[in-house]
Amino acid sequence: METNQATAAKPSSAPVSNVAILGFGTVGSSVARILMNHPSGRFRLTHVYNRDYKRKKVDWISDEQVSWTDDFKKIIDSDVDMVVEVMGGLNPTRDFVAQALSAGKSVVTANKQLIAHHGTELMQLAAKHGKQLLFGASVAGGIPVLSGLQEGLAGDRLYKINGILNGTCNYILSQIEQVGMPFATALEHAQQLGFAEANASDDIDGFDARAKLAILSLMGLRTHVHPNQIPCHSIRKCEVVDFLYARDLACTIRQISRAEVKDHKLSASVQPALVPLDSPLARVSGSQNLVVATGEWGGDTVFSGHGAGGNPTAVAVVSDLIAIAEGRVSEGHCQPIADAAEVTGDFTAQHYLRFTVKDKPGILFELTRIFKEHDLNVDSVLQKPGYAKTALPFAVILEPCLASQVELALKDFDSLDFLVQSAVSMPMLG
Amino acid sequence: METNQATAAKPSSAPVSNVAILGFGTVGSSVARILMNHPSGRFRLTHVYNRDYKRKKVDWISDEQVSWTDDFKKIIDSDVDMVVEVMGGLNPTRDFVAQALSAGKSVVTANKQLIAHHGTELMQLAAKHGKQLLFGASVAGGIPVLSGLQEGLAGDRLYKINGILNGTCNYILSQIEQVGMPFATALEHAQQLGFAEANASDDIDGFDARAKLAILSLMGLRTHVHPNQIPCHSIRKCEVVDFLYARDLACTIRQISRAEVKDHKLSASVQPALVPLDSPLARVSGSQNLVVATGEWGGDTVFSGHGAGGNPTAVAVVSDLIAIAEGRVSEGHCQPIADAAEVTGDFTAQHYLRFTVKDKPGILFELTRIFKEHDLNVDSVLQKPGYAKTALPFAVILEPCLASQVELALKDFDSLDFLVQSAVSMPMLG
Repeated sequence: METNQATAAKPSSAPVSNVAILGFGTVGSSVARILMNHPSGRFRLTHVYNRDYKRKKVDWISDEQVSWTDDFKKIIDSDVDMVVEVMGGLNPTRDFVAQALSAGKSVVTANKQLIAHHGTELMQLAAKHGKQLLFGASVAGGIPVLSGLQEGLAGDRLYKINGILNGTCNYILSQIEQVGMPFATALEHAQQLGFAEANASDDIDGFDARAKLAILSLMGLRTHVHPNQIPCHSIRKCEVVDFLYARDLACTIRQISRAEVKDHKLSASVQPALVPLDSPLARVSGSQNLVVATGEWGGDTVFSGHGAGGNPTAVAVVSDLIAIAEGRVSEGHCQPIADAAEVTGDFTAQHYLRFTVKDKPGILFELTRIFKEHDLNVDSVLQKPGYAKTALPFAVILEPCLASQVELALKDFDSLDFLVQSAVSMPMLG
Repeated sequence: METNQATAAKPSSAPVSNVAILGFGTVGSSVARILMNHPSGRFRLTHVYNRDYKRKKVDWISDEQVSWTDDFKKIIDSDVDMVVEVMGGLNPTRDFVAQALSAGKSVVTANKQLIAHHGTELMQLAAKHGKQLLFGASVAGGIPVLSGLQEGLAGDRLYKINGILNGTCNYILSQIEQVGMPFATALEHAQQLGFAEANASDDIDGFDARAKLAILSLMGLRTHVHPNQIPCHSIRKCEVVDFLYARDLACTIRQISRAEVKDHKLSASVQPALVPLDSPLARVSGSQNLVVATGEWGGDTVFSGHGAGGNPTAVAVVSDLIAIAEGRVSEGHCQPIADAAEVTGDFTAQHYLRFTVKDKPGILFELTRIFKEHDLNVDSVLQKPGYAKTALPFAVILEPCLASQVELALKDFDSLDFLVQSAVSMPMLG
């Protein structure tokens, strides 16, 4: 490797900042590599913290330039100006970040759970010490969406965000759609290829995406919400037949994270939804991410690209380091952000319901009776041929209604003896 | 209208800046409206400059708050802090902007021709006076692509930009494709609907897009190029049959602006090109804009949204005003930018050639003879049935080669007596 600090161009006489990296995994090593080669030449990597660091050492970082340590206190006591936290998790990172800020070091982190859970508290701590806490890499990896929302669209008043924030879900749903494999098989494939972890619940059930959505709400909609307040629905229930019916409706199915603020009331959810094929949300392929921000004056703006991966995430980290070095952080970034007065997962939308039944006469009569009781209007019924009478799937499309109305009706359906499994319900985006 | 300054929230004790707007057309009046309603509350619109301003006055701007004038000197002599230039054109705007900067006022402009032709000179003037010149609205209207490239992706080293930068062309090409109308009819429709001007050459022939590409090259690739150095090819030659053949190749046709820098050598062009249907460039609908930036570390990042229109453009202008007010302008913005050591329109790509011939034996033999003389390899030949023998269109796909090689061969084709019109040549993006 020819990567060393001597080759980095130094175009200006700007002061050089000392940087420590916490966690030398994929992202950490990529940050190190970029810092050593970046044309700005204004950073000097001086410390790498990692447990059991000896097994992490690489030949392209010389011991003369960089101190490796497993003792965080050494970094606190050093002349490090900025700390990059790419260890992940809440513990001990929350404590490390707080210590670094209190010691007068700015922090850049890629840790979405840390920011979603403790972001406001840590930003206040940063403000108290006159330092910065930036986290552009915590949402959608290499896509500069947080700076885009806060700075590029500062002139607008944003009120809605829709996104595809989890590449694993997008990959699995694409596989079900394109290859026609069942959910369980698609998940196994994703795990074998390293696109999903052994315990994939965080991705599949929406907890990863909702942490990111909480951050987007914080920085884009200026509304604080705890991730646990955002309802999540798993993509586990999506099957091949749902994609076939979706296609008949000129739609596909995606895990959609969405948040909308009105009068300090936040509507937010993470769930599989039908999206029109001509929407940018339908066109996100593989593990890419996409965010659509909607503003009062400017309408829709779309950001998309690589949502994860060592290099794109590392670019976002280094961009934040540069923003701090140049004193270019938005004032809004540190200003207090209001808590959402109310958080709900309730949106008005058309709904897709898929029932799997043991066929017998009178099924539609029973279903429509319950819809009527709940003031739900049926728009259309779709039934594809070729399925066994003992497990016959068909779809009902409801006219626009609140998700909560549909949920109440679904409870009544559970008592029906002809249902082979619980009904699957998904909103349809307009 | 209930829009007045009293209603604008004032969240912080930040100083209020006085703003003058030059040009009260669609964008200018939209900027005024946003300034009067924006939650930042840190701007006071004090002056509007327009020739014959009396016919421009509106009832939602009171004469007590704002001075209207057709005398630019009054603005220079006033306590205005920031000037918004949304008049367009080079004259007298170049002089006005220079005067404003020299008088210690920062300038925000949406004027692509001004920046493409005189941007570096005016940025130097701004730096000399310690003021700012921002122009986020000059490219792709409301899409925060310039700040995205300069700040959001500051951590990367960008080397390539591909974009759809002209909404008029995109609209016309979409019409030819979807409705199957000839180019001339599609242009007329666009003119009737107000999507194209009476003299549409600026859009159709690529001059509008290349001014924007020059700005993207300046700010994204840090390479200065005069717009006149960028070769343009018109979309006038694109016909329905080209879209039919493109579809057989799983492609569509778009006006593509592209620039790539390597060792200070810039390859740049604006031209119609075949783009794969699964590329984000193929999916830009109607008058939307899209930019794909490619970096050494982060790969592709996509920005898209409304490329024009009063409100999205005004959002970009106000975002720039906020950046200046917060002192948040990238240092790189004012640093000297290298001239391209060499500018060429030559890229290596597969090429699509469409010949329209009066059918007779031996045509393919003649064509392949010329290809062979120019070292061009034929990948495939496509010929759709149903056309008159007197004007038979067919397509030849060439293996990857330089555009300049194809142009040389095209000159030889001109002497062939069976050609009913000159061959149409377009590169195919990978």
